[in-house]
Amino acid sequence: MSKALEFFFFIGSTYSHLSVHRAEAHARAAGVDLVWRPFSVRTLMREQDNSPFAGKPVKMRYMWRDLERRAARFGVPFEGIPPYPIDPDERANRVATLAAVEGWCPAFARAAYRCWFLDKQDPGSPNALRTVLEGLGQSAERCLAAADADAVRSEYRAQTDRARGLGVFGSPTFVAGRELFWGDDRLDDALDWVCDTDAH
Amino acid sequence: MSKALEFFFFIGSTYSHLSVHRAEAHARAAGVDLVWRPFSVRTLMREQDNSPFAGKPVKMRYMWRDLERRAARFGVPFEGIPPYPIDPDERANRVATLAAVEGWCPAFARAAYRCWFLDKQDPGSPNALRTVLEGLGQSAERCLAAADADAVRSEYRAQTDRARGLGVFGSPTFVAGRELFWGDDRLDDALDWVCDTDAH
Repeated sequence: MSKALEFFFFIGSTYSHLSVHRAEAHARAAGVDLVWRPFSVRTLMREQDNSPFAGKPVKMRYMWRDLERRAARFGVPFEGIPPYPIDPDERANRVATLAAVEGWCPAFARAAYRCWFLDKQDPGSPNALRTVLEGLGQSAERCLAAADADAVRSEYRAQTDRARGLGVFGSPTFVAGRELFWGDDRLDDALDWVCDTDAH
Repeated sequence: MSKALEFFFFIGSTYSHLSVHRAEAHARAAGVDLVWRPFSVRTLMREQDNSPFAGKPVKMRYMWRDLERRAARFGVPFEGIPPYPIDPDERANRVATLAAVEGWCPAFARAAYRCWFLDKQDPGSPNALRTVLEGLGQSAERCLAAADADAVRSEYRAQTDRARGLGVFGSPTFVAGRELFWGDDRLDDALDWVCDTDAH
């Protein structure tokens, strides 16, 4: 039986940059299927009054420096601080939801983060999204229309509801059954948990 | 020339339980001197409007579970959720400051965390503190009096001021020169940084 780990993430989460680029290779090396789950961490943070960086300049400054160092440690590209926050309409996240349904989410998420962190654009803006989608061979018009339609909005809301029910409060969060691992820095713990799962 | 890493911590920080028990052995194995720096993270958190768990029950629930798992991973004792928050007068932290000046801070910090996490008592209460201090062969009356006197209060404030100046916002924080590493989960990054320091 193949082992699986859910990867809840939000395009707009800074540390998710690391996971989007490195989690799949680590999971594959551990023999674990990574299941990509775009969700609205912003909704949960608002509900839980949990704002990690807004109004906290000292912590925010540290976060960018730490992210830069962690990126170097893992060989993930980082070329200076990108725009922040992004995707006010959560459009990039809804396209990611469409992509998850259709099976091209990993490639889309990586391209969206490259657009954000390397090209320094907001991947939620329609123009940037068009470029990203066309680079993947997807029809931008079809994807933008689908991301605005009820089916995708409903699926995005459903995954956000699932995350809430599981006790998620941040992005990225790795979920094995009902066991949560928050943060890119818990990826190894999560994979170890999945692989040792017979012991639990 | 010996290499050093400053270890800013606050008795009352939950994740510092891990570092208090494991950081010294890791530092020693890396050939690094760990310099114990008790400070008032509570003062900085108040100033920075940065309250990680108060009013955030979902995140708090996760924290205890994650701490339990991390403790198991590292072989650090954990026997259920201890009282929280503790040390309202920061008395245990001021005794730690005295201990740092006099050279017995590591033993005191470990004993204070055992009192908190294993005996489930507030190590800041005078009675619990007396037991901890006597167990270390220290005169409880002398230490409690010294912890209330100006010299120790002033040193505690000075280390808190230094932490503020360095950009510290949480406990534990490892500091190498002006480079900060926040969280027990950044201990390896911090030690690697110190050991690679010639490259920087």
